[in-house]
Amino acid sequence: MIELPVLPLPSQWPPSVVLAVVESDESFTKAVTASLLVTAGLVFLLSVLLGELCTRLKLPSVLGDLATGMILGGSVLSILVFAEVDQVANGSILHLLELATGAPPDTVMNAYQFQMGEFINNSATIGLLTLLFVTGLESDLEELIRVGPQAVAVAMTGVFLPLIGGAIALIYIFHVPTIPAIFAGAALTATSIGITANVLQEIGHLQSDEGQVILGAAILDDILGIVVLALTLSLVETGSIEPSSLILLVINAAVFVLLAVLLNRYFCPVFTKNIERFDNPAALLLCSFAFLNILALLAISFGLEALLGAFAAGLVLGGTSQREKLMRLVQPFVFVYTTIFFVTIGASVNLNVLNPLVPENREGLVIAACLIAIAVIGKVIAGFTILGDKPINRLAVGIGMIPRGEVGLVFAGLGASTGVLSESQDAAVLIMVVVTTLIAPLLLRWVFPSQPEILTADTAKRFAEIEEAVGGKF
Amino acid sequence: MIELPVLPLPSQWPPSVVLAVVESDESFTKAVTASLLVTAGLVFLLSVLLGELCTRLKLPSVLGDLATGMILGGSVLSILVFAEVDQVANGSILHLLELATGAPPDTVMNAYQFQMGEFINNSATIGLLTLLFVTGLESDLEELIRVGPQAVAVAMTGVFLPLIGGAIALIYIFHVPTIPAIFAGAALTATSIGITANVLQEIGHLQSDEGQVILGAAILDDILGIVVLALTLSLVETGSIEPSSLILLVINAAVFVLLAVLLNRYFCPVFTKNIERFDNPAALLLCSFAFLNILALLAISFGLEALLGAFAAGLVLGGTSQREKLMRLVQPFVFVYTTIFFVTIGASVNLNVLNPLVPENREGLVIAACLIAIAVIGKVIAGFTILGDKPINRLAVGIGMIPRGEVGLVFAGLGASTGVLSESQDAAVLIMVVVTTLIAPLLLRWVFPSQPEILTADTAKRFAEIEEAVGGKF
Repeated sequence: MIELPVLPLPSQWPPSVVLAVVESDESFTKAVTASLLVTAGLVFLLSVLLGELCTRLKLPSVLGDLATGMILGGSVLSILVFAEVDQVANGSILHLLELATGAPPDTVMNAYQFQMGEFINNSATIGLLTLLFVTGLESDLEELIRVGPQAVAVAMTGVFLPLIGGAIALIYIFHVPTIPAIFAGAALTATSIGITANVLQEIGHLQSDEGQVILGAAILDDILGIVVLALTLSLVETGSIEPSSLILLVINAAVFVLLAVLLNRYFCPVFTKNIERFDNPAALLLCSFAFLNILALLAISFGLEALLGAFAAGLVLGGTSQREKLMRLVQPFVFVYTTIFFVTIGASVNLNVLNPLVPENREGLVIAACLIAIAVIGKVIAGFTILGDKPINRLAVGIGMIPRGEVGLVFAGLGASTGVLSESQDAAVLIMVVVTTLIAPLLLRWVFPSQPEILTADTAKRFAEIEEAVGGKF
Repeated sequence: MIELPVLPLPSQWPPSVVLAVVESDESFTKAVTASLLVTAGLVFLLSVLLGELCTRLKLPSVLGDLATGMILGGSVLSILVFAEVDQVANGSILHLLELATGAPPDTVMNAYQFQMGEFINNSATIGLLTLLFVTGLESDLEELIRVGPQAVAVAMTGVFLPLIGGAIALIYIFHVPTIPAIFAGAALTATSIGITANVLQEIGHLQSDEGQVILGAAILDDILGIVVLALTLSLVETGSIEPSSLILLVINAAVFVLLAVLLNRYFCPVFTKNIERFDNPAALLLCSFAFLNILALLAISFGLEALLGAFAAGLVLGGTSQREKLMRLVQPFVFVYTTIFFVTIGASVNLNVLNPLVPENREGLVIAACLIAIAVIGKVIAGFTILGDKPINRLAVGIGMIPRGEVGLVFAGLGASTGVLSESQDAAVLIMVVVTTLIAPLLLRWVFPSQPEILTADTAKRFAEIEEAVGGKF
């Protein structure tokens, strides 16, 4: 049996550095609470303001969250800082906390950094899981099975085209050695379900044919991305690819998906019947979260990502009669935690690598431009691999697959920590991730035509009433 | 300027011991996620089941949460364990996590303990703050000001009677030295707002005169409890009580309360007007949480507890037209996080100290019985200090003040960590807290007569409609 490389969750980027703090006195815990109150408060306020600005400018509000992260991150205000990249927290904030808590400077700084690590880890993980859970709740499993074959074609092309294209370009244009080139190419593979799903939901296209193909492909993409990550990591570490681990992972993913389908068919009626018996209004939410936890744990046991388990849980519970009620209960968690999740993605970007006036940045910027082109073209072509004569917006599907988001950031992080990528190559991967994540929502809005006005149930009812009032004469 | 003793938040019991873990590899973060999924899943499932059982038995469901904690805690299943009391996590759970994540035993154990510390710290803090925020939202500030004078009498008597009674009993009956006796007496002072508010809400008496007096007194009680804690701690440490720090703290508390009243009058219209301008459905929740954070931070700056800030934020926002909408948005957080909060209180109880067959436990049990009697009688007498002829259930008010909950646990914890209390005295304080917390909900239900059926707005409207239909003839 082959030891599989341990696969990181996207939400664990930036990787948590557990500080070697052994303080446990009262002033430390008080400073941790105060730090949490300050940072969370700033994240909430600024994201509401910038999100509103984006909405007014007809941009998706997720860009407001990313901008919030960039402004609060290490490049500008240094309020959301990560210990592992040697960022120092904003002095004014630390001073404010010293004044508020009366704790000594060292304690405040330790507490602040400790809280940042935990704040990011826990809230971003909860945000990602909640987002995927809601995405699952809103997806129609029958529909997803129907779009399955199309999603497979899109996912396969969208993974292997950028991988091969990226590796070849790096080897032949930039004379990058083979292994780093393949690794950087692999960073181009996985689609970020989170950002795309968020934008699709905002513009009301999550339920469309395109939306379902994009989501289906993005899920398969994620599984393929994990396989590619596992293989490239073993390539980096040992110099050889193990076919058996690849086969095992593919089988596991297939079994897991089959399990979700079976649960949707046989578990849903049992869940609905029993949950209605409880008097406790909290029972539905708590049992649903417990179910989410079980499936996420199962996904981890299968060597898959926890977020796939959360998505599967949403998919299964979306088939119950409690769906609408559950969505209302989960919505506040989405508001709070996915905001934090997207803000932390923005905060993890070092804006300094984007400055073209610094000579060392230029090689990275040129490689970045090349990777962005391959990343975009590869996914757009993948969109056109949808077979059949059915009228489906193939360009929109391709564009929906463009954002690399958190999964791309995992590659960038591992590229740096394993030392397989040079600093400029790593910066290039980072820029590619940011740019694809930023442009995809803009392009998605542009490529989806504005929807025709739909006759809603309410409007229809009012028409019927008026019709009745005038004696069916109009 | 006198250095004020740093005042712990009730939620920070058991005190967080930050493990000196410097691992940051992928298998560690994966094991942390898996641990969180397992423990949270078990907490949710068991609390729903036991809560339902309690509801069927006409007991408050919060007892189900406490029982969940006791069962999952170190005394029975050892699933919710705290590193600082040398508890070892359940072997089967650790083994399951090893199988699920493929991580080595050491990594899993470190990840499990690390996650427990964070899980408790963050979720319990969020739970307490959310609960207090909702309590504030549901409280009517005008009403609270009206009951103010009555609440002051109840709070003052309820703090000083158990304090003096407890200290005298320990000194003269059990021959305990003066300082430990005063410390143990001080543990009898503060009322747990959380449990009482929860039970009052469940039985529909939060808005009643009694409910408002209890809450008002409990808040004042908490402030007095903090003063008492500060004074007894400085007594333990230096042997002298500083009158200036007492005066400073009382002034701070008065200024903070005044600030909340002013905000309620002048800030509410501004908040309502601006929040309605946002298109973003998340804006209300995020801005409200930001406001909560600001007031909690302000409370910390004033040397008060963060939970008072959360309560004040709820009180202020309860005066806006967004109140109902906000309560619906916050409800799911209450469902999840206050469950975790109450479960952790249950889990922190070491059930072994309750075994009377162990000779060492007996002295503690006798002291405990004495402390319970003083704790109950002191608060019941406090209820009868309400002046005037107004028909108010004075017994109910006294009983509502009985549970010591989290604040009492802070005393028990500090008694142990500072070494001021012997092991049996500390166990006695712990038992007193648990018993008062367990019996108060039962007594509250018994002492409040079942409510007469109320003519709701809906029913009234229907009556009016029927009346109109029959021509005002009935």
